[in-house]
Amino acid sequence: MLTVNGQRLWNSLMDMAEVGATAAGGNCRLALSAEDFAGRALFADWCHQAGMSLDTDAIGNLFARRAGRTPQAEPVVMGSHLDTQPAGGRFDGTYGVLAGLEVVRSLNDAGITTDRPLEIAVWTNEEGARFTPAMLGSATFCGVVPLADALAIEDAQGISVATALAGQAGNLPLGRRFAAYFEAHIEQGPILEQAGLPIGVVTGGQAICWLDVLVSGRPAHAGTTPMRLRRDALFAASTMISQLEQLANAFGPHGLVTVGQLLIPGASRNTVPGQVRFTVDLRHPQDAQIHAMEESTRRVLQQLAAQRGLTVNIQQHWFSAATPFDRDCIAAVRQAVTALGYPHQEMVSGAGHDAIHLARHCPSAMIFVPCVDGLSHNEAEDALPDDLRMGADVLLGAVLAQAGGQTIPTVSSWASST
Amino acid sequence: MLTVNGQRLWNSLMDMAEVGATAAGGNCRLALSAEDFAGRALFADWCHQAGMSLDTDAIGNLFARRAGRTPQAEPVVMGSHLDTQPAGGRFDGTYGVLAGLEVVRSLNDAGITTDRPLEIAVWTNEEGARFTPAMLGSATFCGVVPLADALAIEDAQGISVATALAGQAGNLPLGRRFAAYFEAHIEQGPILEQAGLPIGVVTGGQAICWLDVLVSGRPAHAGTTPMRLRRDALFAASTMISQLEQLANAFGPHGLVTVGQLLIPGASRNTVPGQVRFTVDLRHPQDAQIHAMEESTRRVLQQLAAQRGLTVNIQQHWFSAATPFDRDCIAAVRQAVTALGYPHQEMVSGAGHDAIHLARHCPSAMIFVPCVDGLSHNEAEDALPDDLRMGADVLLGAVLAQAGGQTIPTVSSWASST
Repeated sequence: MLTVNGQRLWNSLMDMAEVGATAAGGNCRLALSAEDFAGRALFADWCHQAGMSLDTDAIGNLFARRAGRTPQAEPVVMGSHLDTQPAGGRFDGTYGVLAGLEVVRSLNDAGITTDRPLEIAVWTNEEGARFTPAMLGSATFCGVVPLADALAIEDAQGISVATALAGQAGNLPLGRRFAAYFEAHIEQGPILEQAGLPIGVVTGGQAICWLDVLVSGRPAHAGTTPMRLRRDALFAASTMISQLEQLANAFGPHGLVTVGQLLIPGASRNTVPGQVRFTVDLRHPQDAQIHAMEESTRRVLQQLAAQRGLTVNIQQHWFSAATPFDRDCIAAVRQAVTALGYPHQEMVSGAGHDAIHLARHCPSAMIFVPCVDGLSHNEAEDALPDDLRMGADVLLGAVLAQAGGQTIPTVSSWASST
Repeated sequence: MLTVNGQRLWNSLMDMAEVGATAAGGNCRLALSAEDFAGRALFADWCHQAGMSLDTDAIGNLFARRAGRTPQAEPVVMGSHLDTQPAGGRFDGTYGVLAGLEVVRSLNDAGITTDRPLEIAVWTNEEGARFTPAMLGSATFCGVVPLADALAIEDAQGISVATALAGQAGNLPLGRRFAAYFEAHIEQGPILEQAGLPIGVVTGGQAICWLDVLVSGRPAHAGTTPMRLRRDALFAASTMISQLEQLANAFGPHGLVTVGQLLIPGASRNTVPGQVRFTVDLRHPQDAQIHAMEESTRRVLQQLAAQRGLTVNIQQHWFSAATPFDRDCIAAVRQAVTALGYPHQEMVSGAGHDAIHLARHCPSAMIFVPCVDGLSHNEAEDALPDDLRMGADVLLGAVLAQAGGQTIPTVSSWASST
C-alpha cells in the first residue's frame, strides 16, 4: 500500500518552522503578515518544484493544483492554514498543509496520476489572532461571511484585511465546487495520546452553546452584615458552577461544560459580592443533547437563584449546531486507516477548523494525530514524527480513494512504513 | 435625666453636609482636601461659639477642648472623623464628631461643668480613601504608625500627607493620656434596623483574618479536553467557596466569611481555567474562634484540592486580633442607655473605627445607631433624626459618668426626650 515519506514531511515541517520562529521554539506568523507571506512563498516554491500550479481567490486563500486525468472534474482538496497564534506552535494548521504537499510528492514519486485534480488549500486567517472571526478565509469561501464584510475587517492597528492582502488576492472564484475536502490536523487535545492511538477518524464537529450569566444579589459590608442577612452573589454562583460540573457528568462522556470567565464587578476584599458575571461553554456532538444541556443549565441556575432570593439572567451569546462530516469521506478515512493497520478511534473535533465550514459546502472529513500533552496554541506545541507520518499515510489513502487513483496493495506492518 | 437637643444636632449635620455636597445627596470631603479643611473650619467655628479651644497634633488630628473643674485631669474624649469616601454619606464619622459637639452644647445649656476636661477629636484620614492605610490619624496618635512614616504616605497624585497638611499640623503631643474615649457612629450594617432597636452598645471589634488563596490546576481547551482529563481550577474553587459558606454556618451566628475577590488569570471563555486566585475574609469577635476558622479553612481547602489532584496555596495576608472595649466604658454606655430607657442590644463592631486604635491606648467604647438599609460608604447613606438624637443622649450620659458631672435624674419615657 502506498505510503508517504515521513522524513521528508518532518524536514518540511521543520523548514517551515524557521519562518517566524520564536525564541521559545514556537512560531509567530500572524495572518497576512510578512511572516505569513514568507511561509506561503516557501510553500509555493515547494509546490512549483512538485509540478503544481498556484492561484488565489479574493480573500487570499491559496490553492496549489496538481492536474488529474479528467481536468474538468471537481478537485479533491486537502488543506488547512499556515497562519499561527502570536505565540503559536509548529504544527497547528501547518501540518494539514504540508501533509497535503507530502501526499502530492509521494504520488509524484510513485508516478501516479489521479482521475480528479488534487488541490492543497491554504486558508486565510484561520487563527483569528489578527482578524476576528477565526476561520475567515474558509468562511468567506463557503459564503458564511460576505466578501465585502471580510475585506473590511480591521486588526487592532486599524489595518483592514483588504489592505493587508497587499495585492496578493487573486481571481479564483469563491465557492468553487470540490469533490471532497480532507483536513489532517493535530488533535489539540489529550484523547489520542491518553489512549495511545496515532490516528483519530473525525466524524464531525461538536455543537457549541455559549451562555452569559449574571447573578444579582446585594452588595454588603463584609464586617457588618450577618450571614443570614446576606444575598451573596458569589456564594450563589459557586453553587451554580458546582452544579454545572455535575451536569457535565450527567451528559457524559461527550457533554463538556466550561466556565472560563468569572467577574465580580467592583470586587473588593471586604465587600460581599452583589453581582457576579460568568460564562458557560456547553458542547456536545449531538444537537438534541446540546439543547437538553442548555435547558438543564437554565433550570438549575434559576432554581438555585430562587432558593437564595437572588436573580439570575441567562443570555445565549452564541450557538453553533453540530457539524456531521460526510459519510463517504469518513468511510474513506476509515478504510485507509484500516487498510494501513494503524490503531485508531473515531472522535469528534472539539476545536474549530476550516473543515467545519467546508463540511457545509462539500463532502468533508478530518484526520487527527496526537499532540504531546494535548498542548496547542502554545510555543511548546509538539507532535511525534511517526504520528505525523501515519496521519499523512491515511490522508494519502483517503484522497486516492476519492480522487480515483491506483489500486492500493496492503502492507503487513504499519511500523515499517517510512 | 439630661438629654441633648435633637433638632440642633440634625441641623448641624445638615449644615456640615453642605460642605463637599455631591449632586446625588452625599458628601465628598477627601482627607486633607480643601473640602475637608472647610468642614474642619465650620466645626471649629461652632466649637469657638460653644466656648471651646482648639489645637492640632503633628498628624493634623484636631482637638476641641472644654475646660473641666480639674484642669490637670486627663480628659474624657469624644470623636470620630470628618473626612469621607469619594462618594460618601452625610453621617459616617461626621455623626460622632457632631454628637460630641451637641453633648458640649447641651452641657452649656444646662450650665454643667464636669470634673474632667472634655475633648472632641477629629481624626485625620479615617476613611483611607485618599491615603492608605485607613484610620491613619488615630493610628499615628496611638503609636501604631510612626509619625515620619505617616507623613511620607502619598496619595495617587504623589502628594504626601506632610504636603497635604499645608501648615495645619500643630504641637499637641501625640499619645496624650485620655481618661476615656467614646465614639458614636452609624452602625454601617443592618443589625439594629432589622431588630428595630435605636442603640447598639458596642463591646469591641472583631478579629479579622485575611487569606490569599491560589488554586492551581491545568489550563486546557474547552472543546478538546474530556471532563475526566481536566484539572479545572474554577470547578475546584467553586467547591471550596461553597464549603466556606458552610464553614460560616458552623461558626455562626458570629462567624463571618466573605470571598470578595476572585480572579482567573488569562481567563478566556473557551479555556478551562488553570489557575484561580481568591481572597477570604474571616471575622469573629473571639480570637480563639478566628484561629479555629482559619485552621478549618486551610484544612478544607487542602482536602478539596487533594481530592481533585490540584494544589492550593494559602497565604495569610493580614491578621487583626479582636479588640475588646473597656469594661468600665461599656458599663457607662450600658447604664446610660438603661437609664434613658432606650431599646438596645450589645454588639460588636464589624467595621474598622478610630476607637479600635484608641482601645489599645485608653479605656474606650462605642455607641451605634441604625442607618437606613444598613447602607454606608454610599451617597444614599441615611439615618433617622430620632435615632441620632438617642445616640447622642447615650453619649452624653456615658461622658458625664466618666467625666464626673451632675447627678442625672431619670425620665419616664425615651420617646419624649427632644
